Amino acid sequence: MQKKYTMGIDFGSLSARAVLVDIKNGLVAGEYVSAYAHGVLDSFLPATREPLPPASALQLPDDYLAALSESVKGVLSLTNVPNEDIIGIAVDFTSCTLLAVDENAEPLCNKEAFRGNIHAYAKMWKQHTAFAEAEEITRVAAERGESFLKRYGSKILSEWAMPKILETLRKAPDVYAAAYRFIEAGDWINAKLTGKMTMNYCMAGLKFLWSPTDGYPDETYFEAVDPALKHVVSEKLVPESEIYPLDACIGVISEEGAKLTGLRQGTPVAPARIDAHTAASAVGANSPGRLLMAIGTGMGMTLLSKKEIFYDGMCGVSFGAVIPQYYGYEAGLSGCGDIFDWCARTCSNAALEKQAADSKVPVIQILTEKAAKLRAGESGLLAVDWWNGNRSVLADTDLSGMLFGMTLQTQPEEIFRAILEATGFSARMVVDSFIENGINVDVIYAVGGIAQKNILLMQIFADIMNREIIVPDVEQACAVGSAIFAAVAAGSVRGGYDTLDEAIEVMRCTTGIHYHPVPENVKQYEILFKEFKVLHDYFGRGENTLLKILSAMRLSCK
Amino acid sequence: MQKKYTMGIDFGSLSARAVLVDIKNGLVAGEYVSAYAHGVLDSFLPATREPLPPASALQLPDDYLAALSESVKGVLSLTNVPNEDIIGIAVDFTSCTLLAVDENAEPLCNKEAFRGNIHAYAKMWKQHTAFAEAEEITRVAAERGESFLKRYGSKILSEWAMPKILETLRKAPDVYAAAYRFIEAGDWINAKLTGKMTMNYCMAGLKFLWSPTDGYPDETYFEAVDPALKHVVSEKLVPESEIYPLDACIGVISEEGAKLTGLRQGTPVAPARIDAHTAASAVGANSPGRLLMAIGTGMGMTLLSKKEIFYDGMCGVSFGAVIPQYYGYEAGLSGCGDIFDWCARTCSNAALEKQAADSKVPVIQILTEKAAKLRAGESGLLAVDWWNGNRSVLADTDLSGMLFGMTLQTQPEEIFRAILEATGFSARMVVDSFIENGINVDVIYAVGGIAQKNILLMQIFADIMNREIIVPDVEQACAVGSAIFAAVAAGSVRGGYDTLDEAIEVMRCTTGIHYHPVPENVKQYEILFKEFKVLHDYFGRGENTLLKILSAMRLSCK
Repeated sequence: MQKKYTMGIDFGSLSARAVLVDIKNGLVAGEYVSAYAHGVLDSFLPATREPLPPASALQLPDDYLAALSESVKGVLSLTNVPNEDIIGIAVDFTSCTLLAVDENAEPLCNKEAFRGNIHAYAKMWKQHTAFAEAEEITRVAAERGESFLKRYGSKILSEWAMPKILETLRKAPDVYAAAYRFIEAGDWINAKLTGKMTMNYCMAGLKFLWSPTDGYPDETYFEAVDPALKHVVSEKLVPESEIYPLDACIGVISEEGAKLTGLRQGTPVAPARIDAHTAASAVGANSPGRLLMAIGTGMGMTLLSKKEIFYDGMCGVSFGAVIPQYYGYEAGLSGCGDIFDWCARTCSNAALEKQAADSKVPVIQILTEKAAKLRAGESGLLAVDWWNGNRSVLADTDLSGMLFGMTLQTQPEEIFRAILEATGFSARMVVDSFIENGINVDVIYAVGGIAQKNILLMQIFADIMNREIIVPDVEQACAVGSAIFAAVAAGSVRGGYDTLDEAIEVMRCTTGIHYHPVPENVKQYEILFKEFKVLHDYFGRGENTLLKILSAMRLSCK
Repeated sequence: MQKKYTMGIDFGSLSARAVLVDIKNGLVAGEYVSAYAHGVLDSFLPATREPLPPASALQLPDDYLAALSESVKGVLSLTNVPNEDIIGIAVDFTSCTLLAVDENAEPLCNKEAFRGNIHAYAKMWKQHTAFAEAEEITRVAAERGESFLKRYGSKILSEWAMPKILETLRKAPDVYAAAYRFIEAGDWINAKLTGKMTMNYCMAGLKFLWSPTDGYPDETYFEAVDPALKHVVSEKLVPESEIYPLDACIGVISEEGAKLTGLRQGTPVAPARIDAHTAASAVGANSPGRLLMAIGTGMGMTLLSKKEIFYDGMCGVSFGAVIPQYYGYEAGLSGCGDIFDWCARTCSNAALEKQAADSKVPVIQILTEKAAKLRAGESGLLAVDWWNGNRSVLADTDLSGMLFGMTLQTQPEEIFRAILEATGFSARMVVDSFIENGINVDVIYAVGGIAQKNILLMQIFADIMNREIIVPDVEQACAVGSAIFAAVAAGSVRGGYDTLDEAIEVMRCTTGIHYHPVPENVKQYEILFKEFKVLHDYFGRGENTLLKILSAMRLSCK
């Protein structure tokens, strides 16, 4: 019998990656990466050279389409798999990455009238400009005792859909008025593939204040936030009837979708999902107690439970948002690899630059090698990893990074290691808070390029958490995860699977590296973690408001 | 009438600088700098390649002699002034830089038996290895209610003589036993010039627990610290009768001294003084209320008062220690220029390195230029400048640096500016504590190469303190200050002056740049200074012991 494949496409912060996966064993037949031509817009708008406000992170939707087309065609040509053997396709995407589109799903930034309007562009997950709106949305919900608030750890983040939409309403009412839908970029790609605008349990549940049992917040709530926002759900969002559970099929590839990708018209398409969450299926984290850390520029964490437990500190819980039939909990770090990159481009010197140039490797690799030679605690440094704010457990994008313990002898690689350690401490804060609140953590998986490559980081994580960390032997866990969902969208009638559990059982990765804690390091990190927690609470919970003052000052000077 | 000159020689941390000064107007006829061949030993001992403990900072006394010889001969040859027109010489030195010598003033490290013993070398002011001894010396003094303790802000620092001597007694009893005298490097140079081992009011008063009225602490005190230390004063220190007030003449250049320097045998020699304190005379800070900041690798501050006021936070007060007839107060920052250098070699990147290489200037200059373009508060960063510990007002060498507010956009020049600002905040802490304790500060002078060159730093200081800062137009204030003391050592009989006030009136610098506070910046820095104070107290006064824990961990890992 002819081999069958599914296609998973993972849209990250800088590129899209398409993989073709054998549905009988989950092996990757080929992959192709396509970078977004304009990357992340954080300083000015290319169309007008207009400077962007601080904390901006916009993208061009056309870049996504070009990357979609190139990556899918690329992997098809690379593997020579005929498109009739591809039985399903699924897309995962960074989230909340929000677009305002017209009734034809055309992004408003592509219209002449709006090309100079920053609110007409794709607002990336890491765009943090809507902080005031996020606070307002949270405050009004708290004042009204809105029940949805508890599902989000009592705090709505500026990264999410509603603050971004409210920001558009306030700062660009013409864009708001012209928007037929505000839609996640992942769902928008699906609209380009199928011709249908849909949503999914994952993004709707975790980024749009929706839940399968309670639906969206009431109109009276939105009216209380802003009278002009009253009808946002009925007028500006995908209707509830089009929000799909993750094991569904949302439609098939249209003629236009086929043209765009080279895939066969009629190929089933799965609901979109948040990138990091999708990795859970690739490693078999489809039952309670299996924590998945997806380590990239930031770090997404997902965990399942049969129980719906609310506590301040998790980012969100929603039924069926990660794996159907379970409550999916979301948490994470808002900075990780991007802080490591920051360190490499900010804490260097001539000797390191020369060494990197001589060895033809990036500075970050030299820093990693040097940091690996240090003992735990040797640097005498402690960092708090809030360069990009804190997602969990404080959920405060306004916080910023801290570094303690510098002497005249402090070396760049020591700062680098302290930053690696800081992400470990921060990750442990999240794990500990899950456990303290009654959500079991039995096994910890780490996926993503950094988890695969950075042995030092993974050992530090094992030492800090005093737990085994498993790094499954799957390089593109998000894309492979998507391919697994695609096999469910196809269903057994097309040679796929009828349930996600079946698909995962066959297609997941079963091998990997196990990192075990080193007792000597555990001891040192135990001491440092205690201190980290003190700093975390002192600077993060309002006793010392320095970071808020600094943030306000920085913004007011721009 | 033939012009007359005096010679001032300023021994800094890395080099000696000789200046020849016209005694009728204070103008510098010539100067010559000679670097110490071995610089600062902080990683290993050249004689044996033995690694040094952390916080070590040793030097080779022979380097001082070579620099003395070279710099004096250099300036003589440069100026062609005949040595009979040089009527006096004076040396200032970093302090406490301590040597163990035999009865011929030969440093013990030059003897075969001790060349491998780190305690036989010159222990620089910034050697911080004797912290345990400093604590013990302080504790025993506090327990016994020793009256001298209050003159030092209730805290004896590891930089000073007694902790260094106790460290030698404990860790190298053979060096202690063989030492005929423990002597300041400045006084040792004078011994090489004159053949006499003497001390001076400045170093004895501020670094040896001595005062003109109370003398040294009692033998019973030293016995309580360690029975073997009981006779330290009578057996190991220069006798009190040989401690000279600063306007005295300690002797004349010997035949050997003449050979060493090319100066005329019989030339009067002034008492040695601490380098930073000597600058006060060069700028005319010889009356109460005139605060002098000598900005170099660290920052020495001196201030005069008619009153003897004791408070925790100043480093020392001793009568006649800066200018005769006044109580001289000492305070300062243990890091300044060296932290800026740290930043330039630790917070850089490829672009900065390239720009520096292309422009053929050091990275620190590029950083300064870029930092000067930022507005106060724009970086959103706040640093606490304890990279080398805190000298005033906490007097704690165990503290370390901190940096707050980093985002993914934070640039190296922003960190650099935050560090400049941190030294300004720290300096203001000292100024404020003088004033709060009833010691007036009316005028602030800044001297030293950094004060001369770094316009940005001086403006930041003026803005942070909300006061005028005067940078007198004297490049080598310490060396010129020494030359003024040399004119007093000569006395009017030799064409010099009989009082220091007379000499200062004629020879001091009267021109300079005045930095005035910019109201907009003052406002921003007022906000940040309030936060700085909170951090200062929280991390510096025991509420949060993180920095102590980090320091202990760093040391235990070495």
